[in-house]
Amino acid sequence: MIIAIYGMGLIGGSIGRTIVKNTGHYVIAADIDPAAMLKAKMLGACHEEIDEMNISSADIIIIAVNPYQTLDILEELPTKVKSGAVIIDTCGIKRSIVSKMEGLKSIYPEVEFLGVHPMAGREFSGISHSTTSLFEKAYFIITPVHTGIEALVKIKTLFKEMGCEGVVTASADYHDRVIAYTSQLAHIVSSSYVKSPMSREHHGFSAGSFKDLTRVAKLNPIMWTQLFLSNKDYLLEEISQLIEHLSEYKEAIAEGNFQELQKLLSEGVIRKEYADKLAKEKINE
Amino acid sequence: MIIAIYGMGLIGGSIGRTIVKNTGHYVIAADIDPAAMLKAKMLGACHEEIDEMNISSADIIIIAVNPYQTLDILEELPTKVKSGAVIIDTCGIKRSIVSKMEGLKSIYPEVEFLGVHPMAGREFSGISHSTTSLFEKAYFIITPVHTGIEALVKIKTLFKEMGCEGVVTASADYHDRVIAYTSQLAHIVSSSYVKSPMSREHHGFSAGSFKDLTRVAKLNPIMWTQLFLSNKDYLLEEISQLIEHLSEYKEAIAEGNFQELQKLLSEGVIRKEYADKLAKEKINE
Repeated sequence: MIIAIYGMGLIGGSIGRTIVKNTGHYVIAADIDPAAMLKAKMLGACHEEIDEMNISSADIIIIAVNPYQTLDILEELPTKVKSGAVIIDTCGIKRSIVSKMEGLKSIYPEVEFLGVHPMAGREFSGISHSTTSLFEKAYFIITPVHTGIEALVKIKTLFKEMGCEGVVTASADYHDRVIAYTSQLAHIVSSSYVKSPMSREHHGFSAGSFKDLTRVAKLNPIMWTQLFLSNKDYLLEEISQLIEHLSEYKEAIAEGNFQELQKLLSEGVIRKEYADKLAKEKINE
Repeated sequence: MIIAIYGMGLIGGSIGRTIVKNTGHYVIAADIDPAAMLKAKMLGACHEEIDEMNISSADIIIIAVNPYQTLDILEELPTKVKSGAVIIDTCGIKRSIVSKMEGLKSIYPEVEFLGVHPMAGREFSGISHSTTSLFEKAYFIITPVHTGIEALVKIKTLFKEMGCEGVVTASADYHDRVIAYTSQLAHIVSSSYVKSPMSREHHGFSAGSFKDLTRVAKLNPIMWTQLFLSNKDYLLEEISQLIEHLSEYKEAIAEGNFQELQKLLSEGVIRKEYADKLAKEKINE
């Protein structure tokens, strides 16, 4: 197959390198930054650059850029690709992307669309940090857009070839609701956590919890601003809820209420154990 | 040397097993739970049980129980031990412990005291989860109580024999202020984080940030309640500050303020990089 990738950043670059390494597919790629494009070629993330000619032969087109730019590229693509080509994205939010895809699908029924969110990342950005192992054991969430079975099989096979652990199908709405909690809230908390003046004093004073709580504070601000603002409703709900819970602990501590504080902590233990148990069961399904 | 350990839990058990494994010291131990004591003997965490006789020969006495119980044991110990014996604790808070030790030191000047907080732990409690590697690469924070140089050398040598990475000396006040942030706040946040109903949906929807943010939610509720209430002032300050920061992000998102949100996130990146840089420099000192 011919696979086109828009965006040679951490995700696009890693996808390209993994496909080139693991498969016989021919990869064409594009990036607005010439330096990134050069690096992509040097790292073997693609075979050649996308042009008006070769894009019309692509079987799969992967858009791996920030959410707002994804919408722009999506808009232009359907007239350039061949009938039956499958266009997928890699954004961390799905409602705005899938809604755009649905609109395009009604105009270009001969093109296939699929929303995709690879559950993989690093606390670094750019092609220089791309790897050929980023998707090993990673889950890919897919949000179908009346996607045909043949197209779905094509994409799932590609993910398998890339070493992915499993594919989870979800509606865009469900995806955005869950991701607001599992990923977006974590980034907000991490970024807030490092803002205490005490963050300069942590060395030798932490057994690992500080490291865990602040790891994802090192993020790509533009991309995450776009992600957060594209998921405003669900994310605000999660932040408000967390603040409420924190306030419960705060109150119990301020009052010196031993029983209440112990109860709050015990509930946390139970929730955590239950969450871990469910995750294990789902793995064994 | 003869080393006495009160408390055969995760910390006391691990200390005992590590000393027995790595050194030639003779370890005597006690626990109010006979089952824990039996397990301790089976796991080789001690050579024999503490009694009224052998405690009077101990060179070092380590109290490895919850903060409130540590105060009780401290109260009784000085009359039982020999002149020059060094009494240390292992609590996660230091002000109340060190203040108690200072009071005792003025009454029993022939006994040595030292506050100790080993920066090591696991999200499990009890002797069954003890290991002989818990203190490898761990830092030990010590808070001296007019401790003599000979006693300090004795204790630091023991920590080295246990495989510890380094010893950091701090005042009890500084310890409690920093630990409120690096460790206690992390446990409060983790415990709050798992309380969203979404915690049941995370499987396949997280690349690791959920795991990181909730790891320490699995804690020992009684011990942590004691720790939190013993560090009320500093901990409340940190919780309030975190809530304030979270509210800034929340407001920027609610307003759809792209510039402000990007600024908040960028500041987080800078803070995180600075904190990591300082920690690296301190390691190389």
